[in-house]
Amino acid sequence: MPTTDEIQAGFKDVQDRICDFLAQADGRRAHEDRWDYGKGSGGGVTRVWEHANLLEKGGVNFSAIRGSSMPASAVTQIQIPPNTPFLATGVSMVLHPWNPHIPTTHMNIRYFEAGDAWWFGGGIDVTPYYPVLGQVVEFHQALQAICNESGYSYAEHKKNCDEYFFLKHRGETRGIGGTFYDHLRDDKEKAFKYCLALGRAFPNLYRPFIEANRDTVYTEAQREFQLYRRGRYVEFNLVYDRGTLFGLQSQGRTESILMSLPAAAHWRYDYHPAPGTPEHKLTDFYLKPQDWATISVQK
Amino acid sequence: MPTTDEIQAGFKDVQDRICDFLAQADGRRAHEDRWDYGKGSGGGVTRVWEHANLLEKGGVNFSAIRGSSMPASAVTQIQIPPNTPFLATGVSMVLHPWNPHIPTTHMNIRYFEAGDAWWFGGGIDVTPYYPVLGQVVEFHQALQAICNESGYSYAEHKKNCDEYFFLKHRGETRGIGGTFYDHLRDDKEKAFKYCLALGRAFPNLYRPFIEANRDTVYTEAQREFQLYRRGRYVEFNLVYDRGTLFGLQSQGRTESILMSLPAAAHWRYDYHPAPGTPEHKLTDFYLKPQDWATISVQK
Repeated sequence: MPTTDEIQAGFKDVQDRICDFLAQADGRRAHEDRWDYGKGSGGGVTRVWEHANLLEKGGVNFSAIRGSSMPASAVTQIQIPPNTPFLATGVSMVLHPWNPHIPTTHMNIRYFEAGDAWWFGGGIDVTPYYPVLGQVVEFHQALQAICNESGYSYAEHKKNCDEYFFLKHRGETRGIGGTFYDHLRDDKEKAFKYCLALGRAFPNLYRPFIEANRDTVYTEAQREFQLYRRGRYVEFNLVYDRGTLFGLQSQGRTESILMSLPAAAHWRYDYHPAPGTPEHKLTDFYLKPQDWATISVQK
Repeated sequence: MPTTDEIQAGFKDVQDRICDFLAQADGRRAHEDRWDYGKGSGGGVTRVWEHANLLEKGGVNFSAIRGSSMPASAVTQIQIPPNTPFLATGVSMVLHPWNPHIPTTHMNIRYFEAGDAWWFGGGIDVTPYYPVLGQVVEFHQALQAICNESGYSYAEHKKNCDEYFFLKHRGETRGIGGTFYDHLRDDKEKAFKYCLALGRAFPNLYRPFIEANRDTVYTEAQREFQLYRRGRYVEFNLVYDRGTLFGLQSQGRTESILMSLPAAAHWRYDYHPAPGTPEHKLTDFYLKPQDWATISVQK
């Protein structure tokens, strides 16, 4: 059984590995800030890229905090009485590359203790602007392999992701999904290994998107569409995201919580891309849940 | 006693007056959309400026809807049982001018019926980027006069505004405030007249900001700071604003609800303006509640 210290150390190691990968991919190392959790004990290490080479904005946070009262937003399936002391540790990452042909991506692994209860959660998802079907399929097949090796159901965690990253007021998913899981609390070792496997797989999961698309030329109109779509990312994170709400409710470090927001976002009143355009296909096809791992890709 | 029809007609007239004023100030008339409320009866008239002359983005909405179950977000002080049919009508306006020397402004007047209960709410507030103290004082003194003439307490409605338009996670107010009131339900005629007085006063309240600042030259850095501060506007509207939550929860027309968002917003990690700069003075002085109506302005 992994101890709490081992879990924290394992998560911290995931942060380091991801940051090494990104430093190489971007050509620039992250800016780092260490912070203490004022409302309890512990703290975190925030690493941020801004206006870098590959990344317009990106952040990889590690935190491990202890507090005296578990915020309501973190818990939906487990009854935690008010004023229960808690521990929360995790790695949270959001990357917004400059190039609209490279998707935005988000990954999170997390572990909670509250009173006698403990549980793991996590997931990864991808938000493309100009998706390439083959890349989407490869990404989901790789996730399926991780789930299979870890003894968890890809079908279930993929469905969770589609349901969680859904903008009700827009009637669309945030992106092409991935996996999402919460309240894993049957087998501590198995759940911890699954979180680590996901975190360690990140470079291999995201590298194909970078390599295939980083040199793809884009137009000003494509960049504008990316900024418009980033508005949706802001809407999701501020209206729906439980991690963001947990952070704000637990009075965490605002700048670390909101590092997930893009450097720039645009809103345009009642904009609808013309049918037949790639922009229209994004909402019409890609932002509706599909069986990506088994969909047929025409060569 | 004003009838429900008279209240709706009075509010619609306020929308028309404000739009006439703005069409003249901007030099361009708004784009208009009429919509039906799909989840009940009624609908609205949305008027939007985008990339116009004075206004980078602006909207003045009128709506009057009837539904079968009052959303929780609209009601904080009155107990409304679930599944109570409701009527909601109001005018809601947000203006984001191009020039960072002209503040963003928001105004709303609204009327609800739910079962046997009815109440009015409303308010106006101003969010400057480069405030001029004399203009802030004049604005608050004009609001004080409206409250006095209408028989309501400026001190109370000013305090409500400071408390409501507060970003807890940032420890700052949204702007220099104004007035905010809710659940006025003692005297229907008096409350209705107050809402109308506020709505009709809007051109006189906002014109001084436009006239004094519309020709003020601004630098690229000032525009960038405005875009950065617009991120705060997005944060407030999506995380805290009850009107936005009411709209989304009542499954209103998303594009009309979110017309309050700016055309563009920027986020910069852990940005702090240098002490002594106007940008620093904004958060250090203007975004803390002050007794604007009585503060001494040095000539």
